[in-house]
Parts: sequence; structure tokens; C-alpha cells
Amino acid sequence: MCGIVGYIGKQDAAPILLDGLRRLEYRGYDSAGISIRNAEGFKTTKRTGRVENLRKAVLGSDHGGDIGISHTRWATHGGVNDMNAHPHVSWNGKMTMVHNGVIENFAFIRRELEAKGIDFSSETDSEVLVNLIAFLYEAERDSNGTSDLEALMKSLRGALSQVEGTYGIVLLCSDLPDTMLGARKGSPLLIGVGNGENFLASDVTAFAGRTQNVVYLDDGQIATVARGDFSITTMDEVAISPIINTISWDIEDSEIGNYPHFMLKEIFEQPMAVENAMRGRFSQDNSTAQFGGLNIEPRELRQIDRILFLGCGTAWHACLVAEYLIEKYARIPVEVEYASEFRYRNAPLDKNTLVFTISQSGETIDTLEAQREAQRKGYRVLGINNVVGSTIARENDGGIYQHSGPEIGVASTKAFTSQCHIVAMLSLYFGRMRDMSFSEGTEIAKALKKAPGLIAQALNHAGEIESIAKKYAHHNDFLFLGRQLMFPISLEGALKLKEISYIHAEGYPAAEMKHGPIALVSPDCPTVAIALKGEIYKKSLANIQEIKARNGPVIAITDAGKEFPEGLADDVIHLPETHEINHATLMSIPMQLLSYYIAVERGCDVDKPRNLAKSVTVE
Amino acid sequence: MCGIVGYIGKQDAAPILLDGLRRLEYRGYDSAGISIRNAEGFKTTKRTGRVENLRKAVLGSDHGGDIGISHTRWATHGGVNDMNAHPHVSWNGKMTMVHNGVIENFAFIRRELEAKGIDFSSETDSEVLVNLIAFLYEAERDSNGTSDLEALMKSLRGALSQVEGTYGIVLLCSDLPDTMLGARKGSPLLIGVGNGENFLASDVTAFAGRTQNVVYLDDGQIATVARGDFSITTMDEVAISPIINTISWDIEDSEIGNYPHFMLKEIFEQPMAVENAMRGRFSQDNSTAQFGGLNIEPRELRQIDRILFLGCGTAWHACLVAEYLIEKYARIPVEVEYASEFRYRNAPLDKNTLVFTISQSGETIDTLEAQREAQRKGYRVLGINNVVGSTIARENDGGIYQHSGPEIGVASTKAFTSQCHIVAMLSLYFGRMRDMSFSEGTEIAKALKKAPGLIAQALNHAGEIESIAKKYAHHNDFLFLGRQLMFPISLEGALKLKEISYIHAEGYPAAEMKHGPIALVSPDCPTVAIALKGEIYKKSLANIQEIKARNGPVIAITDAGKEFPEGLADDVIHLPETHEINHATLMSIPMQLLSYYIAVERGCDVDKPRNLAKSVTVE
Repeated sequence: MCGIVGYIGKQDAAPILLDGLRRLEYRGYDSAGISIRNAEGFKTTKRTGRVENLRKAVLGSDHGGDIGISHTRWATHGGVNDMNAHPHVSWNGKMTMVHNGVIENFAFIRRELEAKGIDFSSETDSEVLVNLIAFLYEAERDSNGTSDLEALMKSLRGALSQVEGTYGIVLLCSDLPDTMLGARKGSPLLIGVGNGENFLASDVTAFAGRTQNVVYLDDGQIATVARGDFSITTMDEVAISPIINTISWDIEDSEIGNYPHFMLKEIFEQPMAVENAMRGRFSQDNSTAQFGGLNIEPRELRQIDRILFLGCGTAWHACLVAEYLIEKYARIPVEVEYASEFRYRNAPLDKNTLVFTISQSGETIDTLEAQREAQRKGYRVLGINNVVGSTIARENDGGIYQHSGPEIGVASTKAFTSQCHIVAMLSLYFGRMRDMSFSEGTEIAKALKKAPGLIAQALNHAGEIESIAKKYAHHNDFLFLGRQLMFPISLEGALKLKEISYIHAEGYPAAEMKHGPIALVSPDCPTVAIALKGEIYKKSLANIQEIKARNGPVIAITDAGKEFPEGLADDVIHLPETHEINHATLMSIPMQLLSYYIAVERGCDVDKPRNLAKSVTVE
Repeated sequence: MCGIVGYIGKQDAAPILLDGLRRLEYRGYDSAGISIRNAEGFKTTKRTGRVENLRKAVLGSDHGGDIGISHTRWATHGGVNDMNAHPHVSWNGKMTMVHNGVIENFAFIRRELEAKGIDFSSETDSEVLVNLIAFLYEAERDSNGTSDLEALMKSLRGALSQVEGTYGIVLLCSDLPDTMLGARKGSPLLIGVGNGENFLASDVTAFAGRTQNVVYLDDGQIATVARGDFSITTMDEVAISPIINTISWDIEDSEIGNYPHFMLKEIFEQPMAVENAMRGRFSQDNSTAQFGGLNIEPRELRQIDRILFLGCGTAWHACLVAEYLIEKYARIPVEVEYASEFRYRNAPLDKNTLVFTISQSGETIDTLEAQREAQRKGYRVLGINNVVGSTIARENDGGIYQHSGPEIGVASTKAFTSQCHIVAMLSLYFGRMRDMSFSEGTEIAKALKKAPGLIAQALNHAGEIESIAKKYAHHNDFLFLGRQLMFPISLEGALKLKEISYIHAEGYPAAEMKHGPIALVSPDCPTVAIALKGEIYKKSLANIQEIKARNGPVIAITDAGKEFPEGLADDVIHLPETHEINHATLMSIPMQLLSYYIAVERGCDVDKPRNLAKSVTVE
């Protein structure tokens, strides 16, 4: 989603900012822009499309200066065009600002400002905010003998207290050549603390390799950043002592290597990602899993009657996997809700409910707000996150890091399977705390450890799946069917295809087909059907029969080997048989490969699909 | 789904059977057939497509005889063609049979029979069953001195005990000119008891106007039907005393009148259907609802900690409406599951859980089996059904009839809104048993009573919605967005469009768009968005902004009147403001009309959409 990079230091700002924007590209955006401070005021350039377009526009022209701000925009209010891109400069040219989030009462404030004669040049909610700050600043300066900085801080606080919604902003004022201001509510913002230079950014990746020292801002905090120092205050003018975190990153992880796309690289990283999710997480007797960061005593967990999982998009599918596995293996009732819906629903919860949130980025605003809502009601919230130090991870009461490494492809792959594997381990952990025997625990732990090897076997089918993908890539509608544990995997398979190939794909529990969706079945609408051995195997075959009877092409994914009836499906992908505990992780692999190769065949921009953003930081 | 009609009497069977099949047409099918007994054996004719095709083939030729069976087929095993249609005649010509349901182990039995030299002429599971019965019958007759009827009963019992799956069958044997046999397990079958003539059918509609006396068969029962009498025995040869039910029907209800389609007729019947759902169901002080058939004492209901709703397809959406309203107004936690998934999941349930099943037809096999599973575990199951005397209604522990009148259109309209209204009344009933005050109860009861008038107001928009439909009918992809209570209404709106126009339409909670589905948004993919006043109104507008920013056309449905921002959506349908308790019922109306007019514009067969069946009696 929208990305922010600001720089104040001694070096030329433009190349540093452009480099930062490039690193944020994976988050998804539709336009980009930059403002550099120079003697006359601000030099601002904005371009739709890739950061590369912006770079070309900036490199030839005069963008010299050692302080500047920049932005990649994912449109919320107003179409995708140069005017609506950030930074937005106030009507009087005094201020330039970048903004992530949504100002909900922008229409009202805009009308008020227009009535006072302020002109607007874009349709965005963000321009309303910078004009409001600049308007209040004029008033402060006219009426008081305060310093420019005092006037600016006052007008900033005044403006932020008037707006409803969410923001992460970075602001420059032409009267203050040595100051960069930042503020956040709901959208992430952090300070990169360098040596004689500092950064404000929405994501640590933006200054990867330039400094390892990070200060995370909390909601309601304002950062005043100069070249050599910085300070943080609250909206109520209380000073905050900053905590400087040292982060480690392996810049290699963010490079694409020999792969044509990050997505394919990440698909092939899954044996290692799943291995990393398990490292150090089995008990010494190998009969259960263990997690270091849960911050909860077994005695407390024993009291839990019910678990609620919250997430969005792909993570919501991982929540459904958790429901199935934990209910089956630990016999604890689990509920799953869309984080965005939970947050406004005021659902009645049992008092002994434990809450889990799942978010790869740890910045998903809907999930973060759902977590806060649950915490406000006194529930303990644990998290499953990939990005260390992210807002959700910092605010929750304990949790599990995925250790998947950076996921750059917008369509999640290794982060999802890693989440599936972690919830499988959780079902073992909770199961062993309830009624699961030592021997069943040992058997499941043993099975879990085989997952990386099984994934590697599944990846060997890449060539075969590429051929299948070519055969079906021209279709514009797909159905994905699975039952029980394979239902969320079908949903995820459909979402993947939808995200990167813009094919309308939809997942269903197979038995629901007859209740409506089967109307879609025709030779133009292929179905991907998972049919695994076990008690519903025959039912799954019957569901495939119903589709074939209506001339729908079927791609089957099965572990039944030669038992799978010949001629039933048009194409069959055979995966190895394994313990059910690995099914969610393993059966995701052919889905990912199929989506990937179909998107490539259709010429889609796999790593940066249209309209999408990597971490969703607006509601 | 598949329909069965059998006749034994003194009249010419063919016209009676064809008339019965025509009455069952609404249930959905893809081919039809008939067998009439005559002096040489059986005269059997089968045709793909409409019953009308079959009628033409039968009328001209010799199909005289006073005993016969007939069938409409909805393909499960084997494609849609004349050979696979029913009735199936045994290889030796001795028996003819019609079958609803699925024989799961048909492949195994077929191989066994083929090894013994039996030839097959179709790909169906049903032909396997009739050949198995005929094969066993030959053996019984060869080896014993028993009567033909004894041999037939023995071979029928023997065959049925070998097959796995579900069936409702009617069978004729050429050796027994005065007998028609029926048996059921999982698929409905009933005896229509006439005067010197009897019927065996899957649905009372089949002999509407010919007799009012009905005997419902239970699973595991076998009916031996002659002209003047009938008997029922179990698989274990225990005789059953039949209970004859008298049914009342208004044949007018099943006639289309001046409407071009049943669906439109039923859409316009909704003010009356919702009125009927309320009749006699408010307490004398008008502060709560009351239901006659729940068979549960207030003291027992007081002990309920949690409610589980089970359903499929459209009824599953009504379950989601129940979740939202009961949690909000009664503060009792509610869970919803697909009946088909619940049945195999062995989910851990709290001991104080009350279960509700919702099914218009009361014959949905997945819902019926889920109900049986819950009852097997000792849970009390209540039902919401439209068809009086249906299997689910007969087997549950109590329930609420919808009184919507017959719903003939395959795409449910009045049955759905009636379900929504009943669960709204349930939320009032449960609410008043918990913490809802007299005055809030009175207010909600008053609001509920306004629903028929509000629906009538919504129906006044039909002309305007028809124009909108024409504008968008050429698109092949639609998204439907709503949040909270409007999420299930969006799912239902999408399902309706999918069912009758074969457009790929999908419903989402609006905030989930950013987590993937927004990739689909383009000028070719319109979005139907519900934005109602209240705490998430601004968020809903922001979600519409995000779509407009990506050039997606938006049809908005709102109750905000002039407050709805001008120019935000391409088309706006304004509905009256009302209490939230009516929102699910009311906001469904424009969705139904939109789907209906789009399907008509595309030239689709609205009342008999491809691939679909009305009541889904196979798993």
C-alpha cells in the first residue's frame, strides 16, 4: 500500500529517496512523487506508474537538496493521475506533505476551506489535510509572536485533532529548513536514526542498508526530526523517551537472484521457510510443539474454552486452517472472523476466549484495529506475524514469528504456507495440553518435520503444472473446490489466481456447488478440485462427476495415486500421501504454481498486480 | 433435483405421469423419461431437455397402460443424454426403475456384475442398482419355490443392503402386473393414496389435485403399492402402520398467472409472504414474537449458551443473517456452518448449544443429514422450513413454518426474505428472553410489522432497476459488497445473479476488497455496493471511492437519500430508511430485481436455469 520515505541529512536526498521508493515498490502502488527542498521552496515531481517513470523525470532535472520527502500512492480518493499523486503542496506553496491512510471527513473540511477562499488542485483527502495545516499556520503566525516551529507544531496538532480517519504523514515547511515532521494514527511510521542524517518512513525496508537503528512511532505521536537529533511528543505535548531498536536484515533476501519473479523465488523458498517456522519449536521429547513468545502459562491456557482467530485476505484463510486443525486435534472450539467485520460488530464473546491475529506484515490496519478492540475488552491477544517489530507484533500480548524472510511478491505464498504450518504446530501444542496422547503427539511431530521434504517433492511438479497452466490460461472463470481442511486451501487457490491473473476465480466447499454455483459450470469454466483420500474421498469424486456431467473441464489434485479413477478428470496432479496435519501446507503448492504460470502465460505483472498493495494500511 | 412419479390405477398412466413431471419441472432437471407397462413388458421412452420433448415423443406413439413410472433427471454420474436418462431397464428387460440419489459403490458392483456377464447400456449408478436387483431376482427364482413377489422383495432387500449411498426408487417387475414398489434412504418418497389408484412420488406436487392423502416414507422403508391398497415394511421385514396425512394446497399458487416468470411473480408476492410469516406470531402486548411449534420451554431456552445454524446455499445466507441479528439483539453467540461440512467435521460443540436448520424444501439432503448428526449427538434441533410435512420438518424437534406458499422459481426469492424476517423475529424473541427491555421490544415489533409496506415501496423501483439492468447486462463479472448485516445480503445478491444469468458474481465484505479481490476491478466489472447509514457508512463510502479510483462502475444501494454524495456512484437505488431489523429483508429486493432483469435481458431461462435443481436431494 502507500509508501513514505523522508530524508534529512548531508547527502543529496533525491537518489536516496528514489532508492527507498524502489525498495517499497513491492507494497503495491499506482503513482509516485517526490519533493526536494531548495532555496526557493520545494521542487515537486509526480508521475503515475512505476518509480522508474519518476526516476527518469527527476534525474534529468534540478532536484538538488539534502532534505526531501517522497511517496508511492495506492489510490483511495480520486483517480490515478499526476495531480492526485503525493507529495501535496499547500495552496500557498509553504508546505509539502505525504500521507498514508484515509481522512474520512475530508469533504466537510474541504468545503469549509473553499468557503475561506482556499483553492484545491486535486481530488484527494490528503491535499485537504496539508491545506488545513497551512491555513492554521498562517493564522498562528499572524496572530502570535511565537516562533515558526511553535506555530507549526500548534497548527499541526490543531489540524490533526480536526480530522477523522487514519494517517501516517511526513511534512516539510519552507520556513523551517532544518526540520522534518512526522505523525501517525493508524498508519505505520518510523524513524531511521543515522549518523548526522535521519529518515522517516512507513517501513524499515525503505532505508535498508543505511541504518540499523529504528524508532517505531505509536499512534498519537509526533516526531520532530533534524539532521543530528530528533524528539517525539504526543498530541497533548507530552515528551516521549524513544526506544531505539536494532534491526537485522539480510539484503540478499530482498534481491530477486536468478528468478524471473519474486513470487516464483518465494514459492521455491518454501521448504526453507517451513523449516525456519519449525526451528527450535519442538519439545525435547518430540511429542509436542513449543513457542517462546506466547507469554502465557500452561495453567492459563488450560482455562481457555474457545479461540477466536482474526485476519484478512490470505491470513483469513490461514485462520480457517487453524479452525479445522485445532478443533480436530485439540478439540477446542475455534471461531474465525474477518478482522474488518469483527472490529465493528461488538460480537458477544465467552469470557474464557483466547484471541489470535494473523498478519504477515503486522501492519494490516483492519487486523490491528480488531486486535485493539479485543484488547480493549480485556481479551488476551496473541499474534502470528512475519515482520519483526511490526505494530501488531509490538502491541499484542505475545505471539509467534514466522521467520519466513521478507516476502516481496504481493501475492502471498511462503508467508501463507508458513502460517498454515505454524497453526498445525499450534494444534499439536494445544492438543497435547488437552487430550492428545504422547504417541499421537510424537506421530504428528514426526509428520510435521517431513513437510519441507514433501514441499520439495511438490515443487518438482512445476514443469508439469506449467504445461497444464498453458492449456487453461485463456479461460476467464475458474472454480476451486475442496472440502473440510481443503476448503480454505481452495479459497486461497482462487484468491491467488484472482490477484495475479485478474481471472474471476472462486472457491467453494464442493458440496455447495449444487446450491447455486454449478450454474457457472460450462466448457469455458474449468474447475480445480482437490480430492484426498479419507472419509469424504468418494463424495469428492461424486462432486467431480457432477461437473463432468455438465461438460466442465476438471483439474484434479489428489494423493490417491493409481486409485484415482482414470478419465474422471481432464488433468490430474498427483501429490504424495502424508498425514493430514501437512495437507494445508502441501496442497497449496500446486495451487500457487498453477496461478503463477497462468498469470505469466497471460502476460500479467506477477509481482505487482494491478490495484493491489502488499500490506494493507488503509481500512 | 431429480423427480419421481409413479402411477398404478385404472386410468391411462402416461398423461397422468407427464402432468406430474410437468409439475416437478421447477425442481430442475436435464432429461426425462417414462416406462409404461403393457402386455409385452415395458414401453420406455427417454429424452434430454424439457418434459415437453418427452410429451411429444410419447403422445404420437403407443404408450397405453394403467401402470407406469417416470422421472426427471439431474445428472450426477454420466453426461446428459438419452441413454443416461431414467427409467433404467434391467439387461434382461424384466425390470424398470427410476432412482433419485447417488450409489457410491456403483463402480465396484458394476465390475462384479460385468464379470458375471451382465451388459450395461448407460454410465449411470442407477442402472447398476436395477441390474443388481434383477440379477438377484433371477437367482431367487431359479433356486426357490417362492412366489414372484417374495422373490422380488428378497432381491430388493438384498440389493439395497449391498449399496452405499442414498436412494429413492420406484420399481416395476414384468412378472408382477399389479404391483409397484418403492424404497427410500436419504431421498424423499411418498405415497399418494387415491380411490382405486395410488401414486409414488418424490414430492406431493406431482399428484396435486388428484389426491390429498399422503403417506411419507421414512428411511429404510419399502412400500408395496397395488391399485386398491398398499403396505409398508422395513428392511428387516417389520410391518409399519401407515399414518395418512391430509394436505391442503391451493393449485392457484402453483400457477404463473399474468407474470412472464415464476421468479417475478414470487418477487412480487413478498409483501404477502412476509405478512404470512408474521401472522399470529406477536405476543398480546406486542413486545415480543412467539412461535407455536418450537416445542421448547422458556426455562430450557434460558439454559442455552450458544446457537448453531446450519444450511446450504441461500438458506446458509439466511443463517448468516441470523448470526448477526441474534448476536446483536439477543447477545447469544451464534455460529454458522455449511450443513454439508458440519456433517463430516465432528466439530466440538458446547453442551448448551441449540441447533437450527434452515431449508425451504425441507428435503435438502445435506441439511437433513447435518440435522441427524446433531440429533445423534443429543442436541435439540429446531427447523425453519417452508414445505409442510417435509422430511426435515418431520424429523426435527420443533420449528417454524414459513408459510410462504409454493416457491416454483429455482432461484429462491420470497422463501429467502421470509427466512430473513423469521430470524429477525427470532432475535426479538430471544432478545426479550434475555436483556431486551419492554420498550425496545415494542419498538422492534412495531418496525417488523412495517416490513410488508417497505417491501412494496422497494418493488416500486422495478422499472428503474430494469433500466439499470439493461445498462450492465452485457458484463460477465460482478462484485457485490456489503458490511456487517449486509455481507450475507451481498453474498445472496451475487448468488442470485450467478444462478439465473451465469454471470460470475461474487460477494465480499467491502473491507476485504483490498486484500485481493480489488484486482478484478476494471471498467468491465461493475460493483453493486450497499451503503447504509450508521457507524460504518463513511467506511462504506471510502470503499466505493477505492473502486471508482480504479474505474470500476458502481451501482449503489442506499438509505441515505440526499446525503449520499452526488457523483460517487454511477447509479444509485434509493430505498427508504428503516430499523436495522428490516434491513436484510428490504435490501434483498433490489438485488433480486437486478438479477432478474439482467437474466431476462441476456435471454436466460430464468425459472429453469441450467445445471440447477430446486431442492437438492443428492449430496
